[in-house]
Amino acid sequence: MVSIKDVARRAGVSPQTVSNCLNNPAIVKPTTRDLVTAAIAELGYTPNASARRLRTQRSNTIAIGIAPVAYSRIYDRLLHALVTEAEAHSIRVMLYKTDSKQDEIRQFDALIRGGDVDSFVLTDTSHDDPRIPWLIEHRQTFVLFGRPWGLPDMHDPQVPWVDVDGRRGIADMTRHLILHGRKRIGFIGWPGISGTGHDRWLGWRDTLLAARMARPDELEGLCAYGEDRIGEGMTACMTLLDQRPDVDAIVCVSDTLATGAMMALPPECDVVVTGFDNTASAQSLEFPTVDQPLTESARQIVRIILERLDARDGARAAEAGGAAGANGTAGTTGTAETKETEETEETATRRTPESRDGLHVLLPPRIVVD
Amino acid sequence: MVSIKDVARRAGVSPQTVSNCLNNPAIVKPTTRDLVTAAIAELGYTPNASARRLRTQRSNTIAIGIAPVAYSRIYDRLLHALVTEAEAHSIRVMLYKTDSKQDEIRQFDALIRGGDVDSFVLTDTSHDDPRIPWLIEHRQTFVLFGRPWGLPDMHDPQVPWVDVDGRRGIADMTRHLILHGRKRIGFIGWPGISGTGHDRWLGWRDTLLAARMARPDELEGLCAYGEDRIGEGMTACMTLLDQRPDVDAIVCVSDTLATGAMMALPPECDVVVTGFDNTASAQSLEFPTVDQPLTESARQIVRIILERLDARDGARAAEAGGAAGANGTAGTTGTAETKETEETEETATRRTPESRDGLHVLLPPRIVVD
Repeated sequence: MVSIKDVARRAGVSPQTVSNCLNNPAIVKPTTRDLVTAAIAELGYTPNASARRLRTQRSNTIAIGIAPVAYSRIYDRLLHALVTEAEAHSIRVMLYKTDSKQDEIRQFDALIRGGDVDSFVLTDTSHDDPRIPWLIEHRQTFVLFGRPWGLPDMHDPQVPWVDVDGRRGIADMTRHLILHGRKRIGFIGWPGISGTGHDRWLGWRDTLLAARMARPDELEGLCAYGEDRIGEGMTACMTLLDQRPDVDAIVCVSDTLATGAMMALPPECDVVVTGFDNTASAQSLEFPTVDQPLTESARQIVRIILERLDARDGARAAEAGGAAGANGTAGTTGTAETKETEETEETATRRTPESRDGLHVLLPPRIVVD
Repeated sequence: MVSIKDVARRAGVSPQTVSNCLNNPAIVKPTTRDLVTAAIAELGYTPNASARRLRTQRSNTIAIGIAPVAYSRIYDRLLHALVTEAEAHSIRVMLYKTDSKQDEIRQFDALIRGGDVDSFVLTDTSHDDPRIPWLIEHRQTFVLFGRPWGLPDMHDPQVPWVDVDGRRGIADMTRHLILHGRKRIGFIGWPGISGTGHDRWLGWRDTLLAARMARPDELEGLCAYGEDRIGEGMTACMTLLDQRPDVDAIVCVSDTLATGAMMALPPECDVVVTGFDNTASAQSLEFPTVDQPLTESARQIVRIILERLDARDGARAAEAGGAAGANGTAGTTGTAETKETEETEETATRRTPESRDGLHVLLPPRIVVD
């Protein structure tokens, strides 16, 4: 591998000068900078990433967890979108295992101690998510993909998030069905309290009530529930058709449940089934579905992370500069010591209120109804 | 974060002594080592990962690619197994995007230049895979998950791989069907030349012929093909039942095709469908399937990587030591310069033949037939 010494030799300057060109170009004469730039291009030199990380105190690495069983059928696509967007900003994506939310907190701790990462992307957000207070307490940079369900203030500037508006996606789909003549539209959802699942259910309910396609007391009879498995989708579909044999469309909370519902439909019956996630199953079985804008989600996640890291570093630099001035000394050792102390105090106060709009991004999905 | 200076202060020694304890403990007095060890434990100090990486010249990072659409339904599970096993060895797993094999080679280049990673795990191996010669030429440490189909020597010591014996898995499944009374066992596979798909097909063919359950000229009529999508599984199943209405079992090359076949079966018909991958679909629809040992695969992959990195570093250290001796000098600058040159020569010759067994691991899968 080409080293900084090779570049220095080629440019006829000292290694320190090359280092200055890279890290503090303003102090190098333009003609010297040109020589060094030419040598770098000629030799194909790339600064060592570990060295750069030590120097900038940034690891330029986003960490994201992977569960034993992916929590969602779109997890692969989200990872790809995130890696693609991160790469465009020279940021790396590191995986850590997450066997439970408590396990994930242990991983945070180890990664932070190792200086391995400087930001986290959290998926599979849930009510009373213990990861959020832990990361806030440890002053870490993070963004949720998904909303912090159950938090009193969904626009808390300490908890930035990017999410797809599932309620809107399901409402759009339900409207589409009504406008294409469907009269009895059932719903298959996930059982229990699920922020995401309930949100999508609201999209179906609101649309039906607004269009007077069901009375409020009819809603429960138009719903069936199952865990996110094909078999449960089959059972839920049979339950629903049993409850309401007049159902002529079924809006499902996921493509997996929709696939099961498709399998359980009697042959030749005229019931439209719709899903959510635009998976290969929806494309293959050709049922309408809702597509999540994952590329845009990844773009927003990386943007928020970069803005927060910049703000943090800017605040640190300002504090360090101020401290040096106050001490009236530029002595290296003294400044370093002071900086260490100041950084700790600074992190406690740096959280100035930020724009609500830029920190909490709800993206519209797109219905796929070919 | 706790720094090396904090540890030094607590232990009442110099930072250099702490550094020696961590990197070259033999030169430190045992009593001093104990003081430092106690201070490290007390303060919860973890050496900065970037600093460690610079020092050891190892990034301790495995890179693995992620495609826009996961090439396999087990990709998530493989990632989780790999991250879990790597973590047990304090190794990190980094993702890079791979939109094509050529794109992947560009990513290799960038990652190597940045000093970001020291090994690669390749998935989705194919005939004439251009990634393999590139990595060999650039003297990189890598392991395939999957075999280098089409390579003249599958046991080339330059191309280590870990794979699951799909042929054996499908043969076991076919034997199970025969031993449970199935008389006409069809096969649904992937179209075109696919190393993995052909290998699995051989497991079905060999078992049928050995048990005289089909004549060689009957085989083609017992097969149908489709891309790995539910809809294609449905079509293939209908084609197959049309060709051979007496089929009473269908062995599918994947759970996805098996799911489609299940959907296409007429109601109440007595045809057993089996899959491959033990996905949620197989569990949910309760068809027999073949389970890949992914935890063991990850263990073997990480073992091979660590052994190869150790061999590389050992060879480098030996070369560097020999060079210093030959020069008869321990002068720092001189040695460093010599070492740099020697390392380049050393990499060209360090590939001593390695045990065939340890480098090419074919793991038996397990059939799931409850």
